[in-house]
Amino acid sequence: MHSIYKEVLRFRDERNWKQYHEEKDLALSISLEANELLENFQWRSSEEAVAESKQNIKEEMADVLIYLIQMADKMDMDLEKEVLAKLAKNREKYPVK
Amino acid sequence: MHSIYKEVLRFRDERNWKQYHEEKDLALSISLEANELLENFQWRSSEEAVAESKQNIKEEMADVLIYLIQMADKMDMDLEKEVLAKLAKNREKYPVK
Amino acid sequence: MHSIYKEVLRFRDERNWKQYHEEKDLALSISLEANELLENFQWRSSEEAVAESKQNIKEEMADVLIYLIQMADKMDMDLEKEVLAKLAKNREKYPVK
Amino acid sequence: MHSIYKEVLRFRDERNWKQYHEEKDLALSISLEANELLENFQWRSSEEAVAESKQNIKEEMADVLIYLIQMADKMDMDLEKEVLAKLAKNREKYPVK
Repeated sequence: MHSIYKEVLRFRDERNWKQYHEEKDLALSISLEANELLENFQWRSSEEAVAESKQNIKEEMADVLIYLIQMADKMDMDLEKEVLAKLAKNREKYPVK
Repeated sequence: MHSIYKEVLRFRDERNWKQYHEEKDLALSISLEANELLENFQWRSSEEAVAESKQNIKEEMADVLIYLIQMADKMDMDLEKEVLAKLAKNREKYPVK
Repeated sequence: MHSIYKEVLRFRDERNWKQYHEEKDLALSISLEANELLENFQWRSSEEAVAESKQNIKEEMADVLIYLIQMADKMDMDLEKEVLAKLAKNREKYPVK
Repeated sequence: MHSIYKEVLRFRDERNWKQYHEEKDLALSISLEANELLENFQWRSSEEAVAESKQNIKEEMADVLIYLIQMADKMDMDLEKEVLAKLAKNREKYPVK
């Protein structure tokens, strides 16, 4: 993930956009991009949506991750470490039967 | 990112959950987790939310990424490659002044 | 509310759209419209958003209500009665000090 | 709709909550409630969700409308009039065949 981290932040910094990146707006943007992803499935089954809109689905997923990375950077957090910590927590909540 | 990919998919496969993972429900789950993240900012400024709920904010961000990875796996897509492709597209849309 | 109820359902029925109105898709549409409303506030304060996008904000609010009414009709529920019931419940949860 | 309008605003005013009601936070709350509604459909078909969670679905729909009414009041707009205006616009966009 380090290589995409670097590219996302370079894109942001070339445009001097960090100054606008309040956490509340970044969280809002993550949610808005997630909804643009979801919009591909409105009135459609999974099969129909993937058949007709695969490219857009991929791009919206990328947008969600691009904002996640920017928010993680703003909060000085290590996204990968948090994923591992959350999985450890989920393992206790949902033990393998 | 390959190491967290592996861990997320191992967690899923130990529980045999892939069978439930229709793309529409995964997209819906990404959106729901993004909203749980956003809920930390309801009636609060960025500063208040980060001061009072930093741990939960991090966990919800991890949840969004956990579902993104599972959806990327379901769709046989390479999330990192898509992020780079989307950045290239955004570079044309928003050229550096 | 009865007059807008009637108009919304007439609009739907003139187009024979009720057949597509599964509850899951209606709930999804309510959420998508709510996010289109929210999008007006991305990277903006309340003041800026209302000053620049008042008309769109109003239209997106109308869209949320149009889908709510269609979902209420699909579920044979009385939206106004549910609002009064929810207020009664909220009164117990948040008593006036 | 006038009777529920009055009740919703009375509930708010008895608690002095109008002072917190910035439009951005109200839009955010509408979206969050819409997602709580949608959560009832996560990993479920419409039939399963309605069979198992009808009461909660109704309450979340009421919550969406309660926030819509409060936002309409904050913006001095007439929700019912906006619904009729939006239907007129939709009629042009989607003419009856």
